[in-house]
Amino acid sequence: MPDPSLDVLAIGNAIVDVIARTDDEFLDAERLIKGTMRLIDAAEAERLYGRMPPGVEASGGSAANTVAGLASLGLRTGFVGQVADDQLGEVFGHDIRALGVDFRTPPRNGEVPTARCLILVTPDAQRTMNTFLGASQFLPPHALDEAQIEAAAILYLEGYLWDPEQPRAAMEKAIAIARRAGRKVALTLSDPFCVDRHRDGFLGLIERSAIDILFANEIEIKSLAQQEDLEAAVAAVAMRVPLLVVTRSEEGALAVRGSERADVPAEPVDQVVDTTGAGDQFAAGFLAGQTQGRSLEQSLRMGAIAAAEVIAHYGPRPEADLKALMATSLARA
Amino acid sequence: MPDPSLDVLAIGNAIVDVIARTDDEFLDAERLIKGTMRLIDAAEAERLYGRMPPGVEASGGSAANTVAGLASLGLRTGFVGQVADDQLGEVFGHDIRALGVDFRTPPRNGEVPTARCLILVTPDAQRTMNTFLGASQFLPPHALDEAQIEAAAILYLEGYLWDPEQPRAAMEKAIAIARRAGRKVALTLSDPFCVDRHRDGFLGLIERSAIDILFANEIEIKSLAQQEDLEAAVAAVAMRVPLLVVTRSEEGALAVRGSERADVPAEPVDQVVDTTGAGDQFAAGFLAGQTQGRSLEQSLRMGAIAAAEVIAHYGPRPEADLKALMATSLARA
Repeated sequence: MPDPSLDVLAIGNAIVDVIARTDDEFLDAERLIKGTMRLIDAAEAERLYGRMPPGVEASGGSAANTVAGLASLGLRTGFVGQVADDQLGEVFGHDIRALGVDFRTPPRNGEVPTARCLILVTPDAQRTMNTFLGASQFLPPHALDEAQIEAAAILYLEGYLWDPEQPRAAMEKAIAIARRAGRKVALTLSDPFCVDRHRDGFLGLIERSAIDILFANEIEIKSLAQQEDLEAAVAAVAMRVPLLVVTRSEEGALAVRGSERADVPAEPVDQVVDTTGAGDQFAAGFLAGQTQGRSLEQSLRMGAIAAAEVIAHYGPRPEADLKALMATSLARA
Repeated sequence: MPDPSLDVLAIGNAIVDVIARTDDEFLDAERLIKGTMRLIDAAEAERLYGRMPPGVEASGGSAANTVAGLASLGLRTGFVGQVADDQLGEVFGHDIRALGVDFRTPPRNGEVPTARCLILVTPDAQRTMNTFLGASQFLPPHALDEAQIEAAAILYLEGYLWDPEQPRAAMEKAIAIARRAGRKVALTLSDPFCVDRHRDGFLGLIERSAIDILFANEIEIKSLAQQEDLEAAVAAVAMRVPLLVVTRSEEGALAVRGSERADVPAEPVDQVVDTTGAGDQFAAGFLAGQTQGRSLEQSLRMGAIAAAEVIAHYGPRPEADLKALMATSLARA
């Protein structure tokens, strides 16, 4: 295989976020569980939107946010995801291409609109997400560009994509292509409910050694391992994947690679405004560190720095130049 | 005439903003004049968008922003403006209705999309606006709801609406309805180039006493009066309108009503981030003060406080609860 021309190619939902500030009373009235993601249909999306405060629209999607962070860090990236041939699809495509990301998936024609995620941000900076998958759930396996996958050092997969049938098949196909080409495969578990829904699927991937790098937060890793105790969960999963990364919000993060382990604290933040995208940017920082051949600890620190940047403002993608930020922040330590 | 059921009804362009951070080099390369607004066609909108960095979408439009500020201040408001039957039109309609604004203008069917304004924000917090008017320029006079205009104490008009033919006719019709109903009419000059384009039209309105309250910034009032000297310009215009309000950015603002005059300094701001909407929110604060029967000086101060809030963050509409902010800020003085 030739040298990779992309550092990371991600496959994920192509979503435009609609971000609104709200309060706990609104979440209670709507019976929403704070901090989680739920899938909603078109009718519920229309109903909830009609009740929401004014919003701001910004390109989102978990893996797409990670790719945006990687691009800001100077890595060569690509993205695969399905938008519709509509205004929000144009917004998504513009925003990701403007970052220099290689995004080739053709927009889908038809009645089904581009995915949107109604994100309710409470004063405690927590985000509660209501995703209408729209066109995103119809990413067909044939939309994959085989050469693009073969050309990427790391294939990065979003756990959320396991929900709808066609993207799941696309992910399976992409894994097979990457494996054949001798590339690495990373997976993020995305959300505790997503792990609940697809525990067997994810464990199956791990069992057949399809995953080289697994990203999870504390709740997700416990759910995957069905272990109440964090260390027991980490131990159980770490013996099954070559590299495990676990984020723990304000408790920091850890990584285990064989017998090697690193722990880092969270990066200090003046004021946490909106935690949307924290995990996505952590993954970006960590993968950038690994791509640059840095140690586990340094890679974790890069993840923590990228996550700290994104939670200090509204919106799921970096506003600062992460490359410059990384240079100053890493030097300071 | 019965008591008004609305405090302010505004007619303006119904626009969704696309806000991106950029630098002076980009403005130079695109030959854009910093701090101004220019009208662009669909082809130029597509070309410029293709070159712009990633953006964030938020409902905008000058008079619509003012109405959002007035709603945040607890006033009863309505808005008239033309969107298309598309996703950005839904976003605009949702956002303004979610504020409690009475917005009844039916969306327009057809190929012409909802207006958008490509806003380039430079590190000095200046905004340079490129407006594709789309459906907004087709607001027809028959879309006006006569009873809604008669029911509003103040009809507030956006100078930008003088550019396209149909909204200009709608504005003229609305003025006639408001006048017959004994209501007040306010006009904002919007932009120095807009004044250049329509000096005779605006002076004509003033000459025939169609305007009770005129809002302008320093450059606009000088352009309208064709006077280099601010005080000379103020004197020339103030003798022709019952109430003149002039904003001067960091120099503060002044108002003249007959022989009465008030001057206020600008409200201090920790960090000016994005000046988009400063004039719009100043008008909101001032009109709220007038509606509440406050003095010229207090009304100007409310304008300055509302403007200070909006320039401290990205986006053209208030993020804070202006009513609460006003209570604390006015008490502090």
